[in-house]
Amino acid sequence: MELKLSVDRLSQLSRAVLIFCKANGIEFEKVKIEFTKKHTRTPEFAEINPMQKVPAIVHGDFKLFESHAILIYLASAFPGVADHWYPADVHKRAKIHSVLDWHHSNLRVVQIIVSYSFDTDESCVFGYIFNSAIAIERGLPLNLQAAAKEEKLLSESLAKIESYWLQGDGPFLLGNEKPSIIDLSLVCEVMQPEAADESEHERILSPHKRILKWIEDTKNATTPYFDEIHSIMPLAREKIKELKVQASKP
Amino acid sequence: MELKLSVDRLSQLSRAVLIFCKANGIEFEKVKIEFTKKHTRTPEFAEINPMQKVPAIVHGDFKLFESHAILIYLASAFPGVADHWYPADVHKRAKIHSVLDWHHSNLRVVQIIVSYSFDTDESCVFGYIFNSAIAIERGLPLNLQAAAKEEKLLSESLAKIESYWLQGDGPFLLGNEKPSIIDLSLVCEVMQPEAADESEHERILSPHKRILKWIEDTKNATTPYFDEIHSIMPLAREKIKELKVQASKP
Repeated sequence: MELKLSVDRLSQLSRAVLIFCKANGIEFEKVKIEFTKKHTRTPEFAEINPMQKVPAIVHGDFKLFESHAILIYLASAFPGVADHWYPADVHKRAKIHSVLDWHHSNLRVVQIIVSYSFDTDESCVFGYIFNSAIAIERGLPLNLQAAAKEEKLLSESLAKIESYWLQGDGPFLLGNEKPSIIDLSLVCEVMQPEAADESEHERILSPHKRILKWIEDTKNATTPYFDEIHSIMPLAREKIKELKVQASKP
Repeated sequence: MELKLSVDRLSQLSRAVLIFCKANGIEFEKVKIEFTKKHTRTPEFAEINPMQKVPAIVHGDFKLFESHAILIYLASAFPGVADHWYPADVHKRAKIHSVLDWHHSNLRVVQIIVSYSFDTDESCVFGYIFNSAIAIERGLPLNLQAAAKEEKLLSESLAKIESYWLQGDGPFLLGNEKPSIIDLSLVCEVMQPEAADESEHERILSPHKRILKWIEDTKNATTPYFDEIHSIMPLAREKIKELKVQASKP
């Protein structure tokens, strides 16, 4: 049964799904969607996801959207996926769901607040750092106060990941010895500001040594696919640089 | 094994968990938490949920928070729960997860944006309608523009539920013949503004006939527990009325 992934590598949620498939040897056809070119607004895409967001999948005649739901489905429907990605044990699985829910109302909410502020439905915008770039692109006033608040929210989420979700002996979330879908999903989210500005991303992450180690461990566990899929980052930065240059011209 | 539910009926997420347990004959001990009295900030509660939110559960020595994760856990760990609440079929289950995720970034985000605006971590505040009451309580300026925007977001979410999630022959979400955890979770959310103002709630919901029918069908499917748990609503409204009277005094 053929699996088609409608994805845009600029979206952290798309990247998590792509890396998961590659790391687990799941064959798929990639349907390249560029949300900046409004591909998500076409009638063809609405057939796959009427909510007009990436990622979305078609597996045979089964359609699904929302990245967490997709990761769980892929881990459940493809028998080759090792148990550690989405454990069958009811208690371990419950903890995975708890982290996925927490992700929605913490790390992800930073992005959602930005998209809300800018009246956009692109919830993979880059928050805090990208705030100014988005404003420039749309001809909107900069809101440095909002950017500072968003950065504060992000830093608080990072601190909670360090002090709570990364407790325990293992290198991964929930103290696990091996990675699960929550590591991929949250690490891809934490990587997102790098698409806007490397040095700013470094500045925000540098106080969080445990987060930095977790990112490295997740990269290593999904080598070479993590870097392969994140090779979009320099292109994203180029685009933002261009916007900044344009905006600085009188 | 004893099940303890730490809940506050003012929280729509707590109500969904309470109704689920009662409708499925799951025995539990209720631990009454009042977030307005800062019970979620005590060291005792932090032992159960370090994120300081309700609902949270303790089952034997297993602790869990995040309402969606709790509903899934209860449906999975208690063998008496009928399959329709959280189907074992991988495709049906995937669709349930998709709705739960959508809930986070749509209906729930209205509440989260309000709590963000007011710098509170009580994400069960009442949005749009309650906006003014919260502002009064905290001595903050009213933000009618924000309230209007929040109401627009809510109405858009309701329209999407009607036009997409309630498609199909059955009376419940995903066109199901019988209710599932998503019906309980989303209906409790949609009921929340009633805790602030009955007539405003009616005004917002009245254009959405399909939503009104779905609320009734979900109530009927969980009778008498739905009304029993929602009997908190008049108390919430009394509190808000008092605040409004206080604020109108010179």
